[in-house]
Amino acid sequence: MAEMEVVSRHRCFGGTLTVYAHQSAATRTRMTFSAFVPPGDGPFPIVTFLSGLTCTEQNFTTKAGAYRSAAERGLVVVAPDTSPRGEGGADDPAYDLGQGASFYVDATEAPWAPHFRMHQYVTEELYELCEHLLPIDPARHGLFGHSMGGHGALVLGLRHPDQYRSLSAFAPICHPTACPWGEKAFAAYLGSDRSTWAAWDATERIRAAGDRSAAPPILVDQGLADGFLAEQLRPDDLASACAAVGQRLQLRKHEGYDHSYYFIATFVDDHLAHHAALLG
Amino acid sequence: MAEMEVVSRHRCFGGTLTVYAHQSAATRTRMTFSAFVPPGDGPFPIVTFLSGLTCTEQNFTTKAGAYRSAAERGLVVVAPDTSPRGEGGADDPAYDLGQGASFYVDATEAPWAPHFRMHQYVTEELYELCEHLLPIDPARHGLFGHSMGGHGALVLGLRHPDQYRSLSAFAPICHPTACPWGEKAFAAYLGSDRSTWAAWDATERIRAAGDRSAAPPILVDQGLADGFLAEQLRPDDLASACAAVGQRLQLRKHEGYDHSYYFIATFVDDHLAHHAALLG
Repeated sequence: MAEMEVVSRHRCFGGTLTVYAHQSAATRTRMTFSAFVPPGDGPFPIVTFLSGLTCTEQNFTTKAGAYRSAAERGLVVVAPDTSPRGEGGADDPAYDLGQGASFYVDATEAPWAPHFRMHQYVTEELYELCEHLLPIDPARHGLFGHSMGGHGALVLGLRHPDQYRSLSAFAPICHPTACPWGEKAFAAYLGSDRSTWAAWDATERIRAAGDRSAAPPILVDQGLADGFLAEQLRPDDLASACAAVGQRLQLRKHEGYDHSYYFIATFVDDHLAHHAALLG
Repeated sequence: MAEMEVVSRHRCFGGTLTVYAHQSAATRTRMTFSAFVPPGDGPFPIVTFLSGLTCTEQNFTTKAGAYRSAAERGLVVVAPDTSPRGEGGADDPAYDLGQGASFYVDATEAPWAPHFRMHQYVTEELYELCEHLLPIDPARHGLFGHSMGGHGALVLGLRHPDQYRSLSAFAPICHPTACPWGEKAFAAYLGSDRSTWAAWDATERIRAAGDRSAAPPILVDQGLADGFLAEQLRPDDLASACAAVGQRLQLRKHEGYDHSYYFIATFVDDHLAHHAALLG
C-alpha cells in the first residue's frame, strides 16, 4: 500500500474524520481524500462521495453535514478530491476543464492522458486503499456524488456493478454527451470521436443496456431552482432511459432548491438511508 | 430600518437561509449576517450565534450543520460577522486583533473606537434588525457562540439578561482578563486600565454577582483535545465563579474533541435543544 500521510484528523460525532494524502499510482500526482469512520468496531459498509466542478475533498467534508447520519447508521464515508492537482501539470484556466474538473474519466488525449485517470483512481486505487486502510466490508460499497460527481457516481457504478452495490446522486450531470459541460470535457479528455463517449455517459449506458429490472434502485434528488437543470443536468433524459429498460429510479424534484451544498445537506440523510438499506 | 441587501438566499431543510448586508450605524461599516428561518409561519424563537477568531458569518453558516435541528425545533438562527471589515480602516496583521477579532466589546481606544463597537452592533442594531426583518418573537431570544464568540455570547448575555433568555457556548474564552488572547485584545480595545476590563469578562461578572441561583442554566461544551484549553479558554475558572454564586452551569468535557467546527457540529443539536427548552 502507498505510504499514507495524515493531513488532519478530528473527532466527530463519536467517530473519526481523517484527511489522507498519498502519491497516486493512477494519476501520478499527490491525491487527497477524507474518510469518516463511525464509532464502533466495524467492519462497516462504505459509501464514496464524488464531488462536483471546482471542488476538492473539503467541500463535501465540511459542508454536507453527512456525518451525524453516517455515525448513527454505522457507515464509513469517503470523499476524494475531484482531479489531479499541482505537479500533474496539465490544467486549463476554465473552471470546467482540468484541475477540479476531471469528469471521472480516464483521459486518452494530450495533455491530459498521463494524469487525468480518475476512473482508475477511484475504482481501483482508492477502492483498494479503503479496503486496507479502513474498517470496512468491501463487499458493501456504495457510490454517490453531486453534479459532475453525480455523473461520476452513476457512470462508475454502472461500469462496475460488482464493486458498487448502491448508487445515488444529487443534481447529477445525467447525460454528459448531450450538454455543454460534458461535450467540452469529453472532447478534451476523450477526443473528437464521439463513439468513445457513450461508455462514460450514464444515460447512454442505461439506454443501451438490456433489461435492468433486477438492478438495485437508484436515488436522484434534483432541485427545481437549480440554474443548471435544463441545459446541463437533464434528469429527464436519465428517467426516460431508465424507464425503457426497467431500471428502477427514484427521481425526486424539489421546489425551490438550488445546486448548492445547502441542497445536499437537506437530503444527504435520505441518501445515506438509501445506501444503508441496499448495503445491508 | 437600514436598507438591507440580500447577498444570497438558499432553500434549506424546508426553510430559507439568507445572507444580508447593510450599512451599520453602530460600526459605521458594511456588516453581513446570515439568518435561517425554519418552515412554518412563526413567530419563532431566535438564537444568535457569535463566531470565533478569524471567522466571518460563513463559518458557522456553512460548517456547523445547525439547520436540520433548527428546522425541526422551529428556531430562527442568526449569525453575524465577527467584526467591522474593509472601510472600517483599523486593522492589525495579527489574527487575534482587529478585523475578525472584535471580542464583541465597544472599543474606547484609538484606532479602534470609531468602528469596533460589536457589543452595540449585536445587542442593539442586529437585535432590532432581527425583530423587524424576521418572523421572530423578540421576547424569546437566545445567544450562543464559539471561542471568542463563546466569550461574546456569555458576556453579552450577562450584560443584557432581559434581552437574552438562554445562553450557551462551545469552547468559550471564559476568562479573557486572565489569558493572552483576552489581555492583548482588551489592552488594545479598552486601554491599559484593567479596572475597565472586568465588565467584559464572563467569569469576573459572575464572580462579582450576587446570588444567581434563579438565573437560567448555562450550557458549555469543551473538547479535551482542544489545544487552546489550558492557556486561553479556562472553563474551570468559569465553573468556580458559577459555583460561588449558585449559577447553574452544565460544563461538559469531551474526550478527543478539538477546537474545530467538527466539534461544534457534533454538539450543536444539544445547544439548540437547550435554547428551545429555555425559550419555550
